[in-house]
Amino acid sequence: MSERPILALAIGDPSGISPELSAKLLADSEIRQMAQFLVIGDPRILAAGAKIAGVHLDLPLWRRGQNALDTSADAVLVDLETLDPNDVVLGESSYAGGRFAYLNFQAALRLAAAGVVDGVTFTPFNKYAMRLYDRGYVDEIEVITRETAADKNGREFNILDKLWNARVTSHVPLSGVAERITRQAVLDGLRLTNTCMKGAGFAQPRIAVAALNPHAGDGGNFGHEDDEEITPAVADAKAEGIVCDGPFPSDTVFLRARRGDYDAVQTMYHDQGQIAMKLMGFESGVTLIAGYGFPICTPAHGTAYDIAGKGQANLGATREAIRVASRLAETTSRATTDRAARLRDIVEGLEFKS
Amino acid sequence: MSERPILALAIGDPSGISPELSAKLLADSEIRQMAQFLVIGDPRILAAGAKIAGVHLDLPLWRRGQNALDTSADAVLVDLETLDPNDVVLGESSYAGGRFAYLNFQAALRLAAAGVVDGVTFTPFNKYAMRLYDRGYVDEIEVITRETAADKNGREFNILDKLWNARVTSHVPLSGVAERITRQAVLDGLRLTNTCMKGAGFAQPRIAVAALNPHAGDGGNFGHEDDEEITPAVADAKAEGIVCDGPFPSDTVFLRARRGDYDAVQTMYHDQGQIAMKLMGFESGVTLIAGYGFPICTPAHGTAYDIAGKGQANLGATREAIRVASRLAETTSRATTDRAARLRDIVEGLEFKS
Repeated sequence: MSERPILALAIGDPSGISPELSAKLLADSEIRQMAQFLVIGDPRILAAGAKIAGVHLDLPLWRRGQNALDTSADAVLVDLETLDPNDVVLGESSYAGGRFAYLNFQAALRLAAAGVVDGVTFTPFNKYAMRLYDRGYVDEIEVITRETAADKNGREFNILDKLWNARVTSHVPLSGVAERITRQAVLDGLRLTNTCMKGAGFAQPRIAVAALNPHAGDGGNFGHEDDEEITPAVADAKAEGIVCDGPFPSDTVFLRARRGDYDAVQTMYHDQGQIAMKLMGFESGVTLIAGYGFPICTPAHGTAYDIAGKGQANLGATREAIRVASRLAETTSRATTDRAARLRDIVEGLEFKS
Repeated sequence: MSERPILALAIGDPSGISPELSAKLLADSEIRQMAQFLVIGDPRILAAGAKIAGVHLDLPLWRRGQNALDTSADAVLVDLETLDPNDVVLGESSYAGGRFAYLNFQAALRLAAAGVVDGVTFTPFNKYAMRLYDRGYVDEIEVITRETAADKNGREFNILDKLWNARVTSHVPLSGVAERITRQAVLDGLRLTNTCMKGAGFAQPRIAVAALNPHAGDGGNFGHEDDEEITPAVADAKAEGIVCDGPFPSDTVFLRARRGDYDAVQTMYHDQGQIAMKLMGFESGVTLIAGYGFPICTPAHGTAYDIAGKGQANLGATREAIRVASRLAETTSRATTDRAARLRDIVEGLEFKS
């Protein structure tokens, strides 16, 4: 295979725009130059997506029981034989659709953890469909941590144009945020942001750190964490050579970043960053999950059930997701032997709850 | 006096653009048609502001010891004789400047509480200067509550163009927010927002309610307050005829409001609204403090020390602040007799810490 990284592409929820986006990206010459693809799904769903997209695809298939893997192909479709398009209704979340997306994602993660691919990309999931299949489903991070047997959770980054946003806490109740904002947690976050951004091509990313409390705690009047945890963490990070400043009041930190003073904002909790990023147009941005030894990227927008089947899905955010994943995947440690055997073992090891 | 409301105008911090803004607004014919003014300050500071603004002002003065009040004048300057312009340096916060702004604000509040004026407006304060004078200074709300002997705190509204934002909690540590988000607190907030907006001219304001937790708690996965406190409060409010919906995830609620689906967003904590409002350009907006029986309005921007003395201060946000105050002041209960005597008593009762 060439020097391009190999990315798994897990086809997402089949009731929205994910099959269409998957077909469009595989037919996009700019994207195809970025990486080779191991597409995980079902050829019937991809064909349905290609029809909606108005593109022609002819990918070699890899099926269970097959031993060889054509490593000269630019893209191979791993057929998990999981879904007939007739079993889903466009615009409606379903158990069958959740099952399809979940199994594709599971296989992609295991392939990446085994070094068969260098990174994972996926087209959007529908959370409700995922939960119809897996009642215990919380979010992607939880699935990734379990599937890769990681000893700690990775971190989500939101990327809009050149601006990155990472958060120290994410899917936790607001009442549980403050106790998690420790000097160590903030420092860990800054280290990961710095490392990931360097991997993505920033020579020296400049990171603005958001405060936890209103007016950055106002000298202790409105909370002590900004002075006692975040400020020392910023000093620790600077001492390690990380370029960062703060804590800045969170209602002005994005104004600083937007005008170009910083490349990233490290926020303390989910909505602190998401409110800002979504107002700035994050629907056209990229979500990156990092911290597992390989990158996981997806467009930030959702399954867009309202335009499913109409051929109107915009490839922009997906193209950016592939670009970030390809770039970061260049540094992933890759298995050099037995990739076909590993692929076979992984697919055979999937638990196909019917 | 005419049917226009009477507003107190407390001149703010003298080291920034407040004297210039005060002079500009008093020279603005559109503003002068909105209200009569009882300006609180010192003629030497206002004259300095007029010189910077390049306008001519000739206001009748009211001084301590004077018994009559010329109620036919469009504007009267109450001279507290508190500051010589030579005692402050432009661009630097000072004890003398904080003292000047604090005493002006204190007098204005007492005049409103006594029914001498129908509302209070002020040009920006500098928090650090306020604290140099009053070491216990927390924020405007705390001063207003004390000066008006109110039995509970009022609420701050942020207004940008036609969009209003009110919050259930404000200057509290993030760790203390969740416990304050009770069904009663949210309902009280919605009632006040509804009442204030009707007073400001909305026939039937449409209020979007922000959730507290990420993804509105995601069905209890990320916190219970959205389901157990906010949802019932929204139902209570609807039952009273208030037009409101939610809780909506806070990272999308402002997108809904911005596209015109709602007139207001009721947020649960300070930064939730401030992050969004500032990204949308709130520096040109208005801050309204309500809940005391009379409106208190100020431009949202600060003292702008960097352009002090240059004549560049933009009157836009101040004009909007006067407009909101005038409108709301039409419903204030006004003292009908003895206004001159009340003014005299109030000015003589001020504690002039030197």
